[in-house]
Amino acid sequence: MAQRTPANAIERLASRLAAELGPERVSASEAVRARHGEGESYHAPAPPDLVAFPRSTAEVARIVAACRDERVPIVPYGAGTSLEGQIAALEGGVCVDLSGLNRIVRVSVDDLDVTVEAGVTRKQLDARLRPEGVFFPVDPGADATIGGMIATGASGTTTVRYGTMRENVLSLTVVTAAGDVVRTRSRARKSSAGYDLTRLFIGSEGTLGIVTEATLRLYPTPEATSAAVCSFPTLDGAVACVIHVIQLGLPVARIELLDEVQMDAIERRFGLGHPLQPTLFLEFHGSRAGVDEAAQAVGELVAESGGGGFRWAASEEQRRALWEARHGAYEASRALRPGARGFSTDVCVPISRLAECISATRREIDEAGLVAPIVGHVGDGNFHVSFLIDPDEPGELARVEQIHDRLVRRAIALGGTCTGEHGVGYGKAKYLPLEHGDGGVALMRHVKAAFDPDGLMNPGKVLPRP
Amino acid sequence: MAQRTPANAIERLASRLAAELGPERVSASEAVRARHGEGESYHAPAPPDLVAFPRSTAEVARIVAACRDERVPIVPYGAGTSLEGQIAALEGGVCVDLSGLNRIVRVSVDDLDVTVEAGVTRKQLDARLRPEGVFFPVDPGADATIGGMIATGASGTTTVRYGTMRENVLSLTVVTAAGDVVRTRSRARKSSAGYDLTRLFIGSEGTLGIVTEATLRLYPTPEATSAAVCSFPTLDGAVACVIHVIQLGLPVARIELLDEVQMDAIERRFGLGHPLQPTLFLEFHGSRAGVDEAAQAVGELVAESGGGGFRWAASEEQRRALWEARHGAYEASRALRPGARGFSTDVCVPISRLAECISATRREIDEAGLVAPIVGHVGDGNFHVSFLIDPDEPGELARVEQIHDRLVRRAIALGGTCTGEHGVGYGKAKYLPLEHGDGGVALMRHVKAAFDPDGLMNPGKVLPRP
Repeated sequence: MAQRTPANAIERLASRLAAELGPERVSASEAVRARHGEGESYHAPAPPDLVAFPRSTAEVARIVAACRDERVPIVPYGAGTSLEGQIAALEGGVCVDLSGLNRIVRVSVDDLDVTVEAGVTRKQLDARLRPEGVFFPVDPGADATIGGMIATGASGTTTVRYGTMRENVLSLTVVTAAGDVVRTRSRARKSSAGYDLTRLFIGSEGTLGIVTEATLRLYPTPEATSAAVCSFPTLDGAVACVIHVIQLGLPVARIELLDEVQMDAIERRFGLGHPLQPTLFLEFHGSRAGVDEAAQAVGELVAESGGGGFRWAASEEQRRALWEARHGAYEASRALRPGARGFSTDVCVPISRLAECISATRREIDEAGLVAPIVGHVGDGNFHVSFLIDPDEPGELARVEQIHDRLVRRAIALGGTCTGEHGVGYGKAKYLPLEHGDGGVALMRHVKAAFDPDGLMNPGKVLPRP
Repeated sequence: MAQRTPANAIERLASRLAAELGPERVSASEAVRARHGEGESYHAPAPPDLVAFPRSTAEVARIVAACRDERVPIVPYGAGTSLEGQIAALEGGVCVDLSGLNRIVRVSVDDLDVTVEAGVTRKQLDARLRPEGVFFPVDPGADATIGGMIATGASGTTTVRYGTMRENVLSLTVVTAAGDVVRTRSRARKSSAGYDLTRLFIGSEGTLGIVTEATLRLYPTPEATSAAVCSFPTLDGAVACVIHVIQLGLPVARIELLDEVQMDAIERRFGLGHPLQPTLFLEFHGSRAGVDEAAQAVGELVAESGGGGFRWAASEEQRRALWEARHGAYEASRALRPGARGFSTDVCVPISRLAECISATRREIDEAGLVAPIVGHVGDGNFHVSFLIDPDEPGELARVEQIHDRLVRRAIALGGTCTGEHGVGYGKAKYLPLEHGDGGVALMRHVKAAFDPDGLMNPGKVLPRP
């Protein structure tokens, strides 16, 4: 573990930042520091030495320049919703809280794009776009900031139709480790002009520079939206049904799998009256006739795949209740074991291997006597396991960690990835060599060294310590 | 311009490669070298010193290692269809002809993905996939290799619906400048595990490493496909109609704009009976009912936008004739001026600025008395100008170059890019600082130096000479 910055350097930096931003926008208070060192994860928190609150790209550039002069680490912070310790200040330094960069700079309905500052939240953007008849589709569940979603390469329930952040960001404004302000790309819908800096920063978790502004793709609000639920006696049946739905080319916008333990949690919390079996929640976007047609086709497929309990959420109210239950899955899970700590992880495998990967994981969880619902963005082969850990139960965390380790290795062995959407942080850095090989990790280290030669940008994240 | 490799180094290398690959797979023949130094562009050709014909990733790695030992430049070659001089061996060296890496390694219909070697061509892949009821959507017109399409970040007529190569490549196998074999990513549909090496290689034109294998996303063949044509008295009307079609969320799979000069060329060649006006060719993919519904909606929109001559290509035969004409546009253009050399360029701008950008360009072309049809992937804001140059007309090339230069600068000034899909090669390298700023180009140079410290990978391409 690298050394902490000496106290006198932090003091000099605090004075300089107070002069740059005003004293009220730099904090060394214990409470503020503690709050900024803790994501929504089970990983040990690590507070920064200082927290700075810039309000513009230029201010972020000045903070980076000051930190560089003092050789102090820099950790960007959005809404604190990350799950793999992305915001833990492992070597102390300055947390750059970007929530003050919260302007929606411009919206173009004709071009179907929007430019926002990094601290704009998903719900804030949604509220601004709704009256225009357009929307931004990436939905990771939490009300994360757009900057945070870029940093982790976020995705969510609608990815099967609209893609991840990588497919939906046109351009970024970034403050580099050298303190320069760079725009990665034009607003054109596509370009072959040079290396793809945009995608390089997406998913880089603040380790290559700080994203301060982004131009995003928008989509027209669909004319009609409809939803459905169905249950299956086996996981295999549910996944086979999903494969058929996708192959029919139906306009699926969401297709979520909840296993029997997750359904148990949801039924206890929301009482929707579904059987405690592997269950699919589906949503279709399209024309009125198109979603009705999809409804009928899916109904037939479910029956063919041995599923049952097919229910169409005919009204907007029913549809909303359905997705409220889906989005409340994590909260409902925690109620299965009051007082327990959550340990949430995600992996992603080719869909043909999904049933196998989930079944083996469920078996191990049950055999170990642990509580851990499973829910997945099944159209992408991505699923989440939410382990619930009793902090007073000796050895439980160690057992969970063992099963988690086997889960990640299994996903990689099946041709998948150690994380589909939560990112690496410091929680999963150790799996990168297994997934990418030494050669792949070596190329990533080349990138890191080229962009951040002094190693000040969010140290200890993404890449494993050498 | 850097120095050529000394002749004795080339001789040593020729012997070593002959020993590695067999003498019949290394050529120093004038004809073979000349053919490999010339793309489909107006740029001056530049033959390599040697051409090597590997048949596997391992052989490519051995060629790269041999070239590195002798410090000889390496230029990868697919089908020779690039348009910006990407394959010109500006400093000589070894051309690596990848056409022998032509295996389709595996197809998974359940996972909707396919793994191919880099030398597989678009049409070869299409023929293999068609009976499976799936397809790979990226269609740049030419029968390029998949490796070439990755190298330039290709796209085409279906990009408005299915995206470019950047959205449709899951994973790559790459031989690095160090001669290592690296797989950039797993087969999972999405991943947040580390830096996006895949997208970094897409569009890098062989300057960071050689792509030898790729895993691509597939799509189910749509149940129904339908097409339509309509004409507009003004370009503004045509573009306004496109914006409305996209905003309605209709299942547009292709939407192409042909200007009056391009329509003149097509009518002379194909005689479809369309008026010589700005014209849209459209295609919809979906269910039978869905494409019929789209047909009706578009017909109404065309009338509202002041368009006319709306014709539905009801039969498969009519639809095929329509797209044959579209794909024959370049050939038809050349017939406008027999004996002329083609000078094809592309830019891409936000769609709200497209009519303005095309109109200004058309005006300048006409005022200069030049012949240059314009055709565009209008849903993306991308368009092509095919200047036809009489080699015997003194000063004509210079006039074209002047108008071309103004076109590129105009596109960038309107928030666009110097190339939407042809790539940079050495033809457009000089525009990168204008488009990306010095800061953006500096980051790209960092990437290049990190991946290719000796500057042997396709030198003189993408980045402008310092």
